[in-house]
Amino acid sequence: MKSIKILDKELSRRDLLIGAGITAIAASVPGFASKADALGGPTEKWPWPYVKLDPQKTADIAYNEWYRVYCGAAVINSIFSQLREKVGEPYKSFPIDAFIFLEGGVSGWGTICGANAGPNIVTNVIIGPRTSGSEDGMRMGSELMQHYSETAMPTYTPKEPKFTGAMPKTVANSPLCHVSVGKWMKAANKDLGSPDRRDRCARLTAAMAFQTVMLLNQWKDGKYQTKGIIPAMNYGIQSQHNCTDCHGDKVPSPPAKKA
Amino acid sequence: MKSIKILDKELSRRDLLIGAGITAIAASVPGFASKADALGGPTEKWPWPYVKLDPQKTADIAYNEWYRVYCGAAVINSIFSQLREKVGEPYKSFPIDAFIFLEGGVSGWGTICGANAGPNIVTNVIIGPRTSGSEDGMRMGSELMQHYSETAMPTYTPKEPKFTGAMPKTVANSPLCHVSVGKWMKAANKDLGSPDRRDRCARLTAAMAFQTVMLLNQWKDGKYQTKGIIPAMNYGIQSQHNCTDCHGDKVPSPPAKKA
Repeated sequence: MKSIKILDKELSRRDLLIGAGITAIAASVPGFASKADALGGPTEKWPWPYVKLDPQKTADIAYNEWYRVYCGAAVINSIFSQLREKVGEPYKSFPIDAFIFLEGGVSGWGTICGANAGPNIVTNVIIGPRTSGSEDGMRMGSELMQHYSETAMPTYTPKEPKFTGAMPKTVANSPLCHVSVGKWMKAANKDLGSPDRRDRCARLTAAMAFQTVMLLNQWKDGKYQTKGIIPAMNYGIQSQHNCTDCHGDKVPSPPAKKA
Repeated sequence: MKSIKILDKELSRRDLLIGAGITAIAASVPGFASKADALGGPTEKWPWPYVKLDPQKTADIAYNEWYRVYCGAAVINSIFSQLREKVGEPYKSFPIDAFIFLEGGVSGWGTICGANAGPNIVTNVIIGPRTSGSEDGMRMGSELMQHYSETAMPTYTPKEPKFTGAMPKTVANSPLCHVSVGKWMKAANKDLGSPDRRDRCARLTAAMAFQTVMLLNQWKDGKYQTKGIIPAMNYGIQSQHNCTDCHGDKVPSPPAKKA
């Protein structure tokens, strides 16, 4: 393991992207290196058939679906419902609504935001796992988390908003629901149950559905060049890039690799 | 929103469970209250047929599967591969291996541990989302995250271990990969790529597969009494219970609900 300093300020995003570009990161640490055969269920053949979708229409669907099934399932359904119509199977047999539990960062625990978990499920289910011949599904999911983390959200404005008041934008600097919602609630001074907060999450969900389809369309055209990295390979531990957010100036170094 | 103090020491797990028992938490905050119809794909009828499985056998499968598909997909496959044989559809059509990306807390980002994400997918796909008539799927997933967070792990010892050295046990006090792996790496003084760390995660995965089947078997017998809570309802924000882990003694209060 490289003994890099892992403070935010000392390891820039640019450094990370360069690192991702010049090393086969997924091969550098055991546990991220396996090429193995799938068990071979009838839907475990990748990629799944995909036709290009309209990002704006997808975002509109996701916005409304948030009010039915919340962040994670709304992203999945905004894309898979259209593919059920345009393609049919295997999308029809995917149990989308089971993923309502992604709400609130998995059942209200504030872990990964559903607007990140949903896109990761979509890209990996369509393109396939990294063991199926391409890392694009995993890398695209990772790129979407990076986009989520560094963008002032929400970027989507509904045509027919369910809430019409002021809508502050905040940068989460994290893929976690707790951090993302917490920073927004602080900036907006609105509580969890407020219509403001609810519509913020619906718009964020729509924004991520838009971005997911934009990247999938590039991939379908053979033009997708991933910006997705696997942070664990850079930090010596599975990690976000915002070490000081929780650790302050006492960011621990991971144990060094034994010779 | 109740203005409760949200420091760990002031809001015990017992308080939370009592709170969960006497209030319909899921109905108390908008965004956790919807009863809505599923879109109605052929697999979106719940519960899925389930037959009781042997927890120990399931754990053994999960341990070995970790070395093929890692934490999240290993839990799913340890259960669904048996149900593919014993039941058939809809398990055969579920694209298990697509979920390899759950490794490393979603593509190495250290968010929710795959040994939590996998069980949540299993319980919600089998029992169904909370909008399908029962909250048991979501609650069971939440209960499993609580078990993960508060138990000295790993509790599973393989019959044919791939690593035979010392195996420290640590309490994560969190469902997050980063926190769970970080605390273990510190206690063991082993790096991310070490065989020790890898086998620790394989054993943890097996332990969670064991626990998941134990609860599913209770549910199948009609004896499941959930201990699962939805933390967002208690804290006024989607949250773990370990506020001081990141915030130290400066735990912020969420904005109060406007009258």
